[in-house]
Amino acid sequence: MDLKDLFLNYQKHESQNVTFLGRVRSHRQGKAVSFLVLNDGTSLNDVQVVYKSEVEGFDKIKDARVSSIVEVYGEVIVTPRKPQPFEIQAKKLVLLDQAVEEYPLQKKEHSPEFLREIAHLRARTKTFQSIFRLRSSLAYAIHKFFQEQNYVYVNAPIITGNDAEGAGEAFVVTTREDGNYEEDFFGKKASLSVSGQLHGESYAQAFNKIYTFGPTFRAEDSNTSRHAAEFWMIEPEIAFIDLQKNLEIIESMVKFVINYVMENNLDELKFCEKNLEFGLIEKLTKVRDAKFQVCTYEEVINTLKIAVDEGHVFENNDIKFGTDLGSEHEKYICEVVYKGPTFIINYPKDIKAFYMKQNDDNKTVAASDLIVPGIGELVGGSQREDDFEKLIRRCKDMGVNIEELDWYNNLRKYGYYKSAGFGLGFERLVMYITGASNIRDVISFPRTPNNLLF
Amino acid sequence: MDLKDLFLNYQKHESQNVTFLGRVRSHRQGKAVSFLVLNDGTSLNDVQVVYKSEVEGFDKIKDARVSSIVEVYGEVIVTPRKPQPFEIQAKKLVLLDQAVEEYPLQKKEHSPEFLREIAHLRARTKTFQSIFRLRSSLAYAIHKFFQEQNYVYVNAPIITGNDAEGAGEAFVVTTREDGNYEEDFFGKKASLSVSGQLHGESYAQAFNKIYTFGPTFRAEDSNTSRHAAEFWMIEPEIAFIDLQKNLEIIESMVKFVINYVMENNLDELKFCEKNLEFGLIEKLTKVRDAKFQVCTYEEVINTLKIAVDEGHVFENNDIKFGTDLGSEHEKYICEVVYKGPTFIINYPKDIKAFYMKQNDDNKTVAASDLIVPGIGELVGGSQREDDFEKLIRRCKDMGVNIEELDWYNNLRKYGYYKSAGFGLGFERLVMYITGASNIRDVISFPRTPNNLLF
Repeated sequence: MDLKDLFLNYQKHESQNVTFLGRVRSHRQGKAVSFLVLNDGTSLNDVQVVYKSEVEGFDKIKDARVSSIVEVYGEVIVTPRKPQPFEIQAKKLVLLDQAVEEYPLQKKEHSPEFLREIAHLRARTKTFQSIFRLRSSLAYAIHKFFQEQNYVYVNAPIITGNDAEGAGEAFVVTTREDGNYEEDFFGKKASLSVSGQLHGESYAQAFNKIYTFGPTFRAEDSNTSRHAAEFWMIEPEIAFIDLQKNLEIIESMVKFVINYVMENNLDELKFCEKNLEFGLIEKLTKVRDAKFQVCTYEEVINTLKIAVDEGHVFENNDIKFGTDLGSEHEKYICEVVYKGPTFIINYPKDIKAFYMKQNDDNKTVAASDLIVPGIGELVGGSQREDDFEKLIRRCKDMGVNIEELDWYNNLRKYGYYKSAGFGLGFERLVMYITGASNIRDVISFPRTPNNLLF
Repeated sequence: MDLKDLFLNYQKHESQNVTFLGRVRSHRQGKAVSFLVLNDGTSLNDVQVVYKSEVEGFDKIKDARVSSIVEVYGEVIVTPRKPQPFEIQAKKLVLLDQAVEEYPLQKKEHSPEFLREIAHLRARTKTFQSIFRLRSSLAYAIHKFFQEQNYVYVNAPIITGNDAEGAGEAFVVTTREDGNYEEDFFGKKASLSVSGQLHGESYAQAFNKIYTFGPTFRAEDSNTSRHAAEFWMIEPEIAFIDLQKNLEIIESMVKFVINYVMENNLDELKFCEKNLEFGLIEKLTKVRDAKFQVCTYEEVINTLKIAVDEGHVFENNDIKFGTDLGSEHEKYICEVVYKGPTFIINYPKDIKAFYMKQNDDNKTVAASDLIVPGIGELVGGSQREDDFEKLIRRCKDMGVNIEELDWYNNLRKYGYYKSAGFGLGFERLVMYITGASNIRDVISFPRTPNNLLF
């Protein structure tokens, strides 16, 4: 039986015999009784198995090393006065496979850096059990949120001939070593996608509501705790809606996924709270229950100016219309000023992408960033430019290759009435919800500059 | 309101006024009354809007072209004697955006080849509405099947330094044009993954039950209706189980996803049946309700030999132990002999991968292919070799780079007791369930040799 089921139903099995397999997490031998702590991966909880020298299989089991696989046959003893709710009094133990002595994950604490070097093993630790089970649940919660509302899941292409958005930061995909792309597999230069948004937008014109959820790539030479060369993005797009409705969808999605893991993964969240971020569950509860605030970029600038005038010191104190807000500014706004999740809307057009809808003031676009306490930007979204001429002008002003994107721009000619969407970096969400502070620790096998293990 | 909701609830809205937006699919003007057929993408069903010259907005709406966006305000008239269950008697019509005359998707029939060239628009046709909504539902059904059984969803890496499986067929990922990989982004040669299985296996040792679901790539120069350079795979892996249990999981997964779309997407399936594959729903019903058969490769060889002796002609008539079964053989076995889904197990080791568990007969491995009527192989799986020495010997025999894979092979040293899993090509599943005969028609933006549009 799975340990997950045993932990759910141990009371039903009180004084009964059960059978299960598990990996040895620790093994302590005493004079009278010995203790095996086992886990089978289905639950964050370990089970303690108590045995004496009379147990069947003693001769072999007494030498079981950490990480060995053991089959247990024994009685469930409910232990209301001990930290664990029950233990197993072994009747028979089979050492199914003995691990070598040099198993790299012994009981002692390991540094995150060391664990990254054994990424194929680190998911066996409780920290990574928690992180990667939460990652899995979050992925499912996202699918569930959109599927239950009739969104169509679109697999945007990973290999793209469309370099427009990735200018300079896209990996090339090739079968050659000489850069002769005309003779290459696709007969032209191919790159790894940096975003599925533009392809997704064309599908929103067909299905009304779509979302992508797939890997994206950036060949950016940044060695920070928040950048990876390979990461997953969720990019929903909804036809016939404006920026305001887009904010409502973002808000309900964020609350839905938080609520989902609070209902389904409380053990993992508690472990993360204890080991990764103090106050994690209270933080998530607040976000789930908050009414997200909305303010304009211009209001933010004014607020920040006042803060500077009153003596607050930012690393970048040069606050004016046009300033690209840094994480320090975003955190000040949502942590100090609004004390909760906040949408900043209507950014200056010059610091945002070509496809965002120009507002009537001729200087801002209908863009929104959702900023949250503790991490800053979590979701970026916008209403899209629906006017073909304006869109082309923005492409030209910003040096976007019009020929490459004619298929995208032309969507505006074929019947187009509003469209809006957003992008959520999945790893950023996982970091926010687990409290992990390094993106390398929420990706199974992370890829960063000069780092390609496994 | 969404047209999907309107179709579900039109009776509740009888004789009431409703408002919705839609794209013009056709527009027919008569002397007394005119007809707009609209769709908003949320439903496969079109709604017919009837209007007279007195309708508010007539002057503009009378010129609405195909693909324009229209806002409708009108009364729901239930029409039990007409093909459609209801129509809308318009009170007010607003032409929100007029499409150009040169819209490529006019009402006439288009060839699949032409539609592939306008992949950004083809999802607006009913055929591709059906295919891509089914694709989306199937993806969700797969997540649902595994998540509800406590599997952990693992995002195996896409960029890999691990060339072992893809020998010669992997795309290179680079930021250079000279093949100097030591100076490249990762400091070594990087490829696009051809399979997430090996990485997934290491996670099954941590979580017991995992599945991957992500894109994989093959730089194979085949221009067939069943090959694409970019496709999605589902690769579950379960620790502590053998081949037999693996077959049970495959069988229940296939039945679950078929049942899911039959319950949730019957409209789309009916459309596919009418337009893509005669008898589709009966085919799927039979698979859902069948008991999958199991036979050994050796039994298959004997059966095929007898068929040849009795005069059956295969393209490859040279049937002996060691023959790599072709699609023609697989179809004969499941369509003529077993008349239903059939697992073929215990293949000769020389035609299967290095990681499959060697059987005691020393000539076969614990592999299984699920073959189904109409398409042949749908799922391939195996129990993995758990003996470190045997695994290394197979690597050497088959020319697999042991150094590159030491992390994978070493899993056998760290406590390892049985593991099995399988691979399901997602596009093959979508083709099977929609009846689409070309893989290019079940991928939003397909990638094949010399073909990289969008």
